[in-house]
Amino acid sequence: MRSTGIVLVILLFAGCEQVEQSGQDYPQPEYMLSQDQTHNRWSSAIEPVLTVPSGSVIEVMTEEASDKQLSMNSSLEDLNNLSFDPIHPLTGPVYVEGAEPGDVLKVTLHKIEMGDWGWTAIVPGFGFLSDEFNEPYLKTFDLTSENGEAQFSDNISIPLKPFPGVMGVAPDTPDSLSTIPPRANGGNMDDPNMTEGTTAYFPVLVKGALFSIGDTHAAQGLGEVCGTAIEAPMNIIYEVEVIKGGRTIQEPQYETEEYYAVTGFGTTIDEAAKKATRYMIDYLEAEKGMSREDAYALCSLAGDLKIAEVVDVPHMLVTMHIPKSIFKD
Amino acid sequence: MRSTGIVLVILLFAGCEQVEQSGQDYPQPEYMLSQDQTHNRWSSAIEPVLTVPSGSVIEVMTEEASDKQLSMNSSLEDLNNLSFDPIHPLTGPVYVEGAEPGDVLKVTLHKIEMGDWGWTAIVPGFGFLSDEFNEPYLKTFDLTSENGEAQFSDNISIPLKPFPGVMGVAPDTPDSLSTIPPRANGGNMDDPNMTEGTTAYFPVLVKGALFSIGDTHAAQGLGEVCGTAIEAPMNIIYEVEVIKGGRTIQEPQYETEEYYAVTGFGTTIDEAAKKATRYMIDYLEAEKGMSREDAYALCSLAGDLKIAEVVDVPHMLVTMHIPKSIFKD
Repeated sequence: MRSTGIVLVILLFAGCEQVEQSGQDYPQPEYMLSQDQTHNRWSSAIEPVLTVPSGSVIEVMTEEASDKQLSMNSSLEDLNNLSFDPIHPLTGPVYVEGAEPGDVLKVTLHKIEMGDWGWTAIVPGFGFLSDEFNEPYLKTFDLTSENGEAQFSDNISIPLKPFPGVMGVAPDTPDSLSTIPPRANGGNMDDPNMTEGTTAYFPVLVKGALFSIGDTHAAQGLGEVCGTAIEAPMNIIYEVEVIKGGRTIQEPQYETEEYYAVTGFGTTIDEAAKKATRYMIDYLEAEKGMSREDAYALCSLAGDLKIAEVVDVPHMLVTMHIPKSIFKD
Repeated sequence: MRSTGIVLVILLFAGCEQVEQSGQDYPQPEYMLSQDQTHNRWSSAIEPVLTVPSGSVIEVMTEEASDKQLSMNSSLEDLNNLSFDPIHPLTGPVYVEGAEPGDVLKVTLHKIEMGDWGWTAIVPGFGFLSDEFNEPYLKTFDLTSENGEAQFSDNISIPLKPFPGVMGVAPDTPDSLSTIPPRANGGNMDDPNMTEGTTAYFPVLVKGALFSIGDTHAAQGLGEVCGTAIEAPMNIIYEVEVIKGGRTIQEPQYETEEYYAVTGFGTTIDEAAKKATRYMIDYLEAEKGMSREDAYALCSLAGDLKIAEVVDVPHMLVTMHIPKSIFKD
């Protein structure tokens, strides 16, 4: 497994050089974190592995969710021996100078490059239909195919669409919280729409924000119903910026060139969906100057409630997207 | 309001002639139903307005959800006087010869053409956030713009994407059921993905199937959170076909060239989402020869749980879509 990790490092650094050569329109990373610079709980008491000014570009390597408990050649026996304790290794935390509670941390995902393998499992007791699927199941994938797909079986191939399952800032507690459920700090949102090019916004809850990222997924449907995606290590280049004096947000939001999105977590999908709807109305009222009634009606006509994940108990995550093209000024 | 109806008839028939002239690749309609040939309850006791053989192509006109209680010039007073009794006028039922309980009725939406106006309202006591929005709200739209958009305000325009909010077969009961909640017979699914080109499948529950369609929407987001879309009359050309001896389905399913989809209704989004997940696993097992474990994992990697509507109490509707492109044979 160690040798796989070393091969991965070489591949990913090679990928990074290509980014530099191709002249992408983002600043080159000034900082680098390895996949060993991780933590696997959420807490304000975890010391930062890096301190940067606002506006910094950072390159991080992430480990897959099991933190090397599984590998390309793992068997069902390895899955049966899987411990949830090391899940999820998160690269960070990064202390962003100037960030204070009440600010917003803007995180732009400039580049996401995959490692060379991944895994998917059904873990008994975990998953949306856990009452009906009691047998352990494991599949590993070679992700080096030039067609950008993962071979699921002889006649099924899944297009790769990599994204970080976990992004978040530290919660306002020194307690040690599980990384499984998403919360107001972000965390295990498992939203397959948060891909390369996405700009995410997090409510800063502690001084320095303490941002971390990990649990990278090579492919996942909306819902992640069996409890896992294609879990795979990756290399991510992101930029952090502290926004002061703007609109307060209660939970993470994000945007691409095409849409603006809000997220809501809840113990039921219904509760999460109601929060997402309210947050979108808040956004339209604050940023577009709409009345709450107009905003509610517009959400009905053009806002899309989307399920992100339904398996990170006790919190489901629902988003609402609104297309930018409907706003003509 | 009557004169608006007459103008609409002329416009839609003009639209129909254009379809004939443009040589679409579907059979020309052999039957025609007007927007007065409607019913507004679900029941096996409602007499059909038309009897056709399997394979028939039918052109129907639909009335908007209020059944002419509202018009382009309606005021809030008209909304306050709105009666739910006439909602939804459904064009049909159509008796399809040979359809027996246990069969599947295949319905292909060949063409959907909009009328010239629509409305959106917040009706106190109705909607996903009905506890928070207590004031009546009404907006009407001119839908004749050549850019294919509805003007929401001076600086907001919404692209039109017409679809029938209600499609369904008669339930296996002579009781008179409300058209508000979706059920196993289909009904008020309010799924904005069921647009022109979609082929839908319904479980036949009574002899002749007794198919009806209506509640046409010019634009709607996933969720329909305020309780209404842009409610608008339309002209629809569809084809019916009885499928015998195939796979049994418990609730409606549908497909386009891009994906296959299942639907699940439930009193909570969570319940509806679990049913949709199970139905997709059933589909993959029966049609793709997959083990249930492989199917569950594939749903996690490539199946998208999508919210259709969250307002047609007591039943929410969730779908799961799986892209056809992942299957290589």
